[in-house]
Amino acid sequence: MPKLVDRELRRQEILEATWRIMATRGADSATMREIAREAGYANGALAPYFASKDELVEAAFLFVFERTNDRIRAALAGLRGVAALRAFLVEVFPTTETTRSEARIVLPFWSRTVTDDRLARLSDASVVRWREELAALLAQGRVDGDVTVDTPDAVLVDHLLATAYGLQVLALLPDSPSSPATQLQLLDAAVAALGAR
Amino acid sequence: MPKLVDRELRRQEILEATWRIMATRGADSATMREIAREAGYANGALAPYFASKDELVEAAFLFVFERTNDRIRAALAGLRGVAALRAFLVEVFPTTETTRSEARIVLPFWSRTVTDDRLARLSDASVVRWREELAALLAQGRVDGDVTVDTPDAVLVDHLLATAYGLQVLALLPDSPSSPATQLQLLDAAVAALGAR
Repeated sequence: MPKLVDRELRRQEILEATWRIMATRGADSATMREIAREAGYANGALAPYFASKDELVEAAFLFVFERTNDRIRAALAGLRGVAALRAFLVEVFPTTETTRSEARIVLPFWSRTVTDDRLARLSDASVVRWREELAALLAQGRVDGDVTVDTPDAVLVDHLLATAYGLQVLALLPDSPSSPATQLQLLDAAVAALGAR
Repeated sequence: MPKLVDRELRRQEILEATWRIMATRGADSATMREIAREAGYANGALAPYFASKDELVEAAFLFVFERTNDRIRAALAGLRGVAALRAFLVEVFPTTETTRSEARIVLPFWSRTVTDDRLARLSDASVVRWREELAALLAQGRVDGDVTVDTPDAVLVDHLLATAYGLQVLALLPDSPSSPATQLQLLDAAVAALGAR
């Protein structure tokens, strides 16, 4: 096996171990030592791949973001406009164990963006990408006659994204989380409201 | 001055110093040592007030939450129904330097709720309180004829709260934050949509 592929495979294994630890035990518990153990490597074996905890958090966020984007791409196959928009958000709303475990990665990532400029710009780039994708679907919805509200698309996009982001917090509440049923009712109401006149 | 009052004043001073450091330099920079220096105390002088960093983060969150609640109470004077609901959310949406600095406290707090059960329950209790307050205002809006949508109030409440929470993230983006203008347009659209038939 060529060395480059080997390196990429190992990097992936480390990220998956990082992700498993962060999702179950939290970002603070994901020390370089713990992650090496989980991935089955000797202590110190991570250093050639990730120089610091911040690099690992960044890579873990990108790993989750791309995994979500893969699901979104699959979910959108054959759809357009508001149907595609709804399918997109279903993959982001934390209604399942998979999406809830992603929320457990995203919250510590957001926390670090407050003081880490590099992570903040990465967060910004991921939002910009989703804004563009949602805006394109809204534009299709306008063409199809399913989006008729006066509110500018850029404002609608930020409302939908803010809703999805806020649910990452509300769905993780221990005693009174936003239930999957509530989240999906809320999504259907938001999608239907796009067609209000 | 009685000792109890003295103690309460000191605790308040420490919390304000904690809050200033967390809002400007982030939760990770707010070490016990740094906070003592900012509050003008000797190193170690904080221990009788807060035994650990987690206790401080909890107290700082409660400090911000109560400050927000004080502003909400003032903003709601003489209002009811959807006008009060709008005024409530204006105090939570991060459109000003004050509310944006509160977002910089809230994000690290949420991050810690992922692994700290005590903080998670505190977060839950604050959400439950706001859900009840927003639900009471929606109920007034129904009486007044300003809230007419079919969506159950509990779902509307979680949509409004998720929006407010998600904006804590979107408003802190370094390159393309949700602008105050976008946030207020979004709020007006959300309030107007409550009256859809």
